[in-house]
This record gives sequence, C-alpha cells and structure tokens, in this order.
Amino acid sequence: MLKYSFEKASRKPLYEELYEALKGDILSGRLQAGQKLPSKRQMAEDNDISITTVLNAYQQLITEGYISSSEKRGYFVEEIQQIEPVPESPHTFVEKYYKEEDWFADFESNNFLYNRFPFAMWKKVIREILSEYDLELVRRGNPFGLEELRTQIADFLYRSRGISVSPECVIIGAGVEYLYARLVNLFSDETIYAVETPGYRKIPDIYDAYDLQWQSVGMDAQGIRMHELFSSGANIVHVSPEHHYPLGTVMSVARRHQLLNWANSNEGRYIIEDDYDCEFRYQSKSIPALKSRDRAGRVIYVNTFSKTLSPAVRISYMVLPEQLLQRYIEHTHFFTNSTSSLEQYAVARFLEKGYFERHLNRIRKQYRQKGEQLIHLLQENKNIPIRSIRGGESGTHVTVSLDTNMSDRELKERSAEKGVHLSCLSDFCTRPEPRYDHVMVLNFSDMEEETQREAIRRLGDIF
Amino acid sequence: MLKYSFEKASRKPLYEELYEALKGDILSGRLQAGQKLPSKRQMAEDNDISITTVLNAYQQLITEGYISSSEKRGYFVEEIQQIEPVPESPHTFVEKYYKEEDWFADFESNNFLYNRFPFAMWKKVIREILSEYDLELVRRGNPFGLEELRTQIADFLYRSRGISVSPECVIIGAGVEYLYARLVNLFSDETIYAVETPGYRKIPDIYDAYDLQWQSVGMDAQGIRMHELFSSGANIVHVSPEHHYPLGTVMSVARRHQLLNWANSNEGRYIIEDDYDCEFRYQSKSIPALKSRDRAGRVIYVNTFSKTLSPAVRISYMVLPEQLLQRYIEHTHFFTNSTSSLEQYAVARFLEKGYFERHLNRIRKQYRQKGEQLIHLLQENKNIPIRSIRGGESGTHVTVSLDTNMSDRELKERSAEKGVHLSCLSDFCTRPEPRYDHVMVLNFSDMEEETQREAIRRLGDIF
Repeated sequence: MLKYSFEKASRKPLYEELYEALKGDILSGRLQAGQKLPSKRQMAEDNDISITTVLNAYQQLITEGYISSSEKRGYFVEEIQQIEPVPESPHTFVEKYYKEEDWFADFESNNFLYNRFPFAMWKKVIREILSEYDLELVRRGNPFGLEELRTQIADFLYRSRGISVSPECVIIGAGVEYLYARLVNLFSDETIYAVETPGYRKIPDIYDAYDLQWQSVGMDAQGIRMHELFSSGANIVHVSPEHHYPLGTVMSVARRHQLLNWANSNEGRYIIEDDYDCEFRYQSKSIPALKSRDRAGRVIYVNTFSKTLSPAVRISYMVLPEQLLQRYIEHTHFFTNSTSSLEQYAVARFLEKGYFERHLNRIRKQYRQKGEQLIHLLQENKNIPIRSIRGGESGTHVTVSLDTNMSDRELKERSAEKGVHLSCLSDFCTRPEPRYDHVMVLNFSDMEEETQREAIRRLGDIF
Repeated sequence: MLKYSFEKASRKPLYEELYEALKGDILSGRLQAGQKLPSKRQMAEDNDISITTVLNAYQQLITEGYISSSEKRGYFVEEIQQIEPVPESPHTFVEKYYKEEDWFADFESNNFLYNRFPFAMWKKVIREILSEYDLELVRRGNPFGLEELRTQIADFLYRSRGISVSPECVIIGAGVEYLYARLVNLFSDETIYAVETPGYRKIPDIYDAYDLQWQSVGMDAQGIRMHELFSSGANIVHVSPEHHYPLGTVMSVARRHQLLNWANSNEGRYIIEDDYDCEFRYQSKSIPALKSRDRAGRVIYVNTFSKTLSPAVRISYMVLPEQLLQRYIEHTHFFTNSTSSLEQYAVARFLEKGYFERHLNRIRKQYRQKGEQLIHLLQENKNIPIRSIRGGESGTHVTVSLDTNMSDRELKERSAEKGVHLSCLSDFCTRPEPRYDHVMVLNFSDMEEETQREAIRRLGDIF
C-alpha cells in the first residue's frame, strides 16, 4: 500500500502533491523500475482522495515518462537512468561584468549627447504611433524592415547624400554589428577583408569574432593606400570616405575614383562604405557619398541612427547593390526582422516630418561648439606639449599630436590616475607604426564645458 | 578667364553653384590636371561675386581633393583618374521580394494570434514608461540587456520553469537568430551540432548560414535517439524537450537523464534547450525544463517573447552556464545591445505586474479551444482519410497522419490550389525517412473558427 500524507494548507492542487510524492519515490528508488502501481481505485481509497485526482497524477507521470500504462494490466514504473554524480557547476559567482565606468572625464567613449535627445518630440511621436496603429505594430512584418521606414531612408539618402536607391535595397537591422553578421554571410570563407590602419577597431574585432581573414592597409593623406590594398589580396574593403575614424581624413576624389576602379575591375570586389559620421560636418557642405558615384553596384552603404538619435534606438541600415540583394534574399530569407516595429514607425515619422533634420541641425551646432571649445582649451593650456591639433571641422573627436617622449601607455595611465580616460592613435592601429605614436584621440560629444575645462587642466599636469 | 552664369532663382548658396561648376569642368577635363585656377580676387571680379564666395567654393574643392592650394603660388587642379567605363549595374528591378501571401487559410505559418494581443495594456505600459523615464531610455546601457528585465526573467523562469539562475546569466537579444549568431561564436570551427530530424528547419538553416557542421539525429517516442547522438560525433545538440516541433514528443525523464549524462561525460558538450513552446500546455501541468536539472552547467536555455507577446516585440533571451558566460564576455564585450530599451522596460513591467501571466492564461485558453475545434472538424470530415491525429494537449499545431498514396508534394499542391497552405512532416526532415510521409502538419494559432471549418472542408475535396 502506498499511503501519502498531503499538506492541507498547500496551495497546490491535490493531484500535484500526489504526483510530486510518486515522482520523488521513483527518483529515489523507493519505487523500482517495473514495479506495478496500485490501481486508480485502490490508490484513491488508500489515500482518501478522488479517483480523478489519482488519474490526473498518473497522467502527468505518464506524460513525463515516469510511469507507463498498459491496457488492462495497470500502471508500471519506468526504467530511469540516474543522473551520474557530477561536480556542481563551478559557481564562480559572476561579478557584475558590466560596470558603468566612473571617470571624471571620458574622452575614450564617443557617447551620444544624451541630454540633447529630443525627448518631448520623440515621446510625442511614439504616442502618436501608439494611437494610430494596432495590428501593424505586432505583425511579423517584412523581414528586411518596415516599408515606410525604408522609403523614408531612401528619400533621406537622396536629399542628404546624393544616393539614388530603391527602398527595396535598404535593409534595416538592430545595429551595425547585426548587419555585419548578415553581410559577411554573403561572401565565401576565402574572402579577405581589408581594414584601414589606424581605423575603427570594432571592424577587425567583428571579423575575428567570425573567424574571417582580414588584412591591414595603411593610410596616407588622401585615404587608404591603393598599392597596399592591391597587394593585400583583399576582395572587400571597409572605408569611411567622408570622415576617417580616427584620423579625420576625407578621402580625395582622386582616391575615390581609384577605389571604384579597383572594385569595378574584378567580379568579387566590394567596398563597404561606413558613413557613420556624415551628419556632422560643420565648416563646409557635406561631402557626397562614395555610393553616389557607384555605377557598377560595388558599394555597400552602411549607416545608423544610433549615433544621431540615440544608442538605445537600435536602428541601423545598409544599402545593398542589387546583385547582392538577390544573394541576401536567398541566404537570409528565413531571418525575421530584428528591430522594434514601434521604433521603426517612430523613426520613419521623424524623417517624414523633418524632425530628424531639425534635430541634426541642433546637435550639429552643439557638437561644433564643443569641438571649438575643446580646441581652444587645448591651445590655451601651456603645459600640454602640443605639436598640432586636427579635427573640429567635422565629427565628434579631435586628434592631438604631442611633442613628448612619454609612451602612449604611460600617457594613458597617468591621465587615468587623474580620472581622465583617453585613447591614443596607436590604439587604433592593427600593426605597429611609430609615426602614429604620441597622438591623443579625444572624443568630446557628450562632455560639458566645465568638465572639458577641468579635464584639460588635469591633462596638463601629467607632463 | 573662367566665367560662369549662375541661376538667380536657385535656392543653393552661390558658392555651391560655383563649386558645382568648377567640379563639373574638372571631371569633364575642361580644366586639366596641373592647370592653375584664377586667384580668388580675379575669379570674384570675372564673375561679379564676392571673394568670400570664391573662397568657400575653393575650400570645398580642396576638402574633396579636386584642387590643391600651394602657398603664394595659388590654386591648382589635381590629377584625378577617371572612373573607367563599366557596365551599369544590372538593374534587374528588384521586385518586391516580400509579399504577404494571400492564402485562404495558412496552416504553414505559426502566426501569433494578432487580434489577441493585449493592446490596451501594452500601450498603457509603454505610456507609463515614457512618462517615468528619460535618460534611461536613450543610454547605451548594458550590452547584455536591461537589468530590470533580466531580473524579471530570472524570477519568471524560477516560478514557471523551475530554473534557478542568476540574472547575470540571462542575455537579452533581438530574436533567437541573433542569439544563435552570438552563441555559435563561442565554439570552435570543429564543433559539430546535432539537430533532430524531423525538427525545426530554421536551426540547420542557421548552421548552414554560418557554414557550420551539423548532423541529423533521429527521434523515437521518448525523444532524440541516444545511440545516434553518440555516433554522430556531435558536441552540441539542439532539443525541445518540453514539446518537440513538429512531432509533439515530450522528452521522457529517462531520456532527459541520458541526455544530461551524455553532456556531463565530456568537457566540450552542451545541450541547447529551445523552450519555444513551454507556455502552451493545456491538459496537464507544465513539464519542468531540462535546465532545471542541470547541475553541471551543460544546458543553454533559449526562449523568446516573440511567440507569446508578439513577433514584433523582438525580445528573446538565453541563459548561459557560468563557464560559457565568461567566454561570452571575452568574445562579445564589444557588441552593443540589439534591443529597444523602451520595449525592454515594457516587457519587464509586464512580467513584474503579472500582466504577462494573465495574458498567457488568456491566450492559452484560446489556443486550446482552437486546437480542440480543429481536431473536432478533422474527425467529423469523412473525406479526409485520417489514420490518426496527434496534438491538441500542448502547443499550436497538430499532426494528421493520412491513409493515402498521394505524395506529400501532390498533397501540398492540391491543397494550395484550394487556397490552403500547409506543410508535411517530410518538410521537417533533414534526411529522407519514409515513415514520416503522409503526415500533415497543421498550425492553427491565428485561424478563426469559420476559416478552419471551410479550410478543412476544402481539404476533404482533394482526396
């Protein structure tokens, strides 16, 4: 006889208590494999519970495979291998691995100007979208992005970057890393990617993450060095012609033409144009995108709203040449879109109503002022052995070349001791090049005037 | 003398017109490499414009590399290689490649029950979040996901799946495909992945997209076949113990123990538990997750809100064992989070306030009814040669085994002609297995009663 005592006060249904009790006895071996359980009626009588309760408990045990039922013969305990004893998972208590770092001044991160985010407008638009749409917000939708948004982006690219492109070629994704993951999928394993050195370190990091082959190609005053690109054997090159990070170089028209000729001369060659910074040119009109001169369909254009609107708006996009689009559809037809519909609608409206460009004009002015002020503070400071300063006419960083013997490592350590976080040009190099030593890279986008002033004063103290 | 005529009515600044004119002449070869341009003063006089206008135009041309200035000598046209003539990109006008398909009844897609989305509640929560938060919504934030949401998910997993896990091990991502892309990054190229056949086809598709090696492993009534798994040489296996798709199998406790023993017996082995459907079990209590018995840290748990809330809420998550978490941090520290902060806050509140579980209870009831009705309609129809029907006790699909000689292909074609879209079990097989022929897979989650009735009637007509 199997008799169990049930907790009267338990909030669990009675059948669950019986199920747990039997399960425990099976796992502990008190009930053994092949053993016959009492019939439902017998079990109900022995425990003073209803037959339905027993049936439900037995049913759950059958579903999970603890017992089986055999018609007319009854219920039997199944053979269950024990989990062999294993050392418990090493509970290396995972410390909070993400810490917001606590610097007095952080010139290393190029943070968005948070307090300039157009909250009122953004919230208004989100509220509008919420009241105008229902089903559209929750449907699976087009895997390549919301049609409204892709149309607005195509218009915007035409207006602001001289790029003429069908909305069908615009692919929306949750961040540039996400789009890169989709993109590298389109090319064979033998593909060699070229990255500029110095350059944006995240790009080779991404290639490494996918175990892809990449080559460093050096820079000169006009942009990426063509002879090095040719000899690298690369098929695909990543560039930012509008504003190289961190050198600030604008790729000359001559170099652009050479680069297009490089791509056009061989079937499998493509250029990835990372236009991350094109919205922030202050002292002249913006420079047309390389993509705007791409007749042969060799330029893949990539940009993001994370930098202009906010890093929390995870909406980036790429423009694929049509032959790649075809390949993309074949490779990733089964991927669902990775981006919030609500926010896609909101960004589309931001573009459509001109809010986006108004916002850009405002922050452009603010970034420009911040840059001018930073340069001014640097020039005024007599303790920093400045050789030259580059930047200010575009983007959100300046480079400061120093007349010092102090190693970059020491420079960064000493400034860190003062609460000032910064990087050096050498941090952006994927191969050692002494000519890039002794150059600080200062990102200034979200630093207030008072912080800048004090940070530069502290920097002066380290020499 | 260079004399240009300017459009008075143009809305462009005068300097831009001059810049465009000079640029055109340089690109066309009218102005040749090395040629000296008129001085600013001369150019201004010749064209009756101000010196500043000329200066601005020259400056833009210098920035873009069309001309250079040489101190005291003047301005000179740069040498610019022409873009060699290339065939225009084949303008295979990209037809709209995403079409919402127009079926009378679609049993193939497992669409979310759109019209049951708790709009009012969702909008209320989004509005609340909008009014309560500012900066938090636009900051870059934790790359692994919002802390509030990860804490709520950890609590939810404990309550509903018996999984005890630190919020630090919960990683948020924009969709399961995104998390998979991160996940496969953690393992070496030599890794062999095992997938169940039949099984969810997206998984081998994803492995293919990343050029990874995978092996099919067959199923029996208790779940994945252990001897095949052993002989496959796989290190990592993807399973859905709670409810196999599309067979509907619940992995027995005996098989679960064997599977855990398989993983525990070798350093590099892991189990990916895809718990995609665990919220929808109707006729018994839910079955504990495999992860809940994982003492050795060998189970990676994956789930999503896209299926329970809406596919447009692109919030999925995975729970990593601690040793993998460490590797994850090293590999992907530079990835930013891919998910909307606004929606992460909203889902966190949905969980915290119990709205999510209330919503689940509601749609669980609706799915159950839809399933019962579909089974009833199938049983009533005398024209469909049904051998057996499986499903209904869980999930949002049933399988219908047929007594017919009609090939699966013909079956699908004939039903498509009637406007009824469906798939067969053989579509889910990664190797041919005749025993899975002649079985329809019918997803029913978003089909209204009237549509079901008519669709089943039409299905009867094809035999």
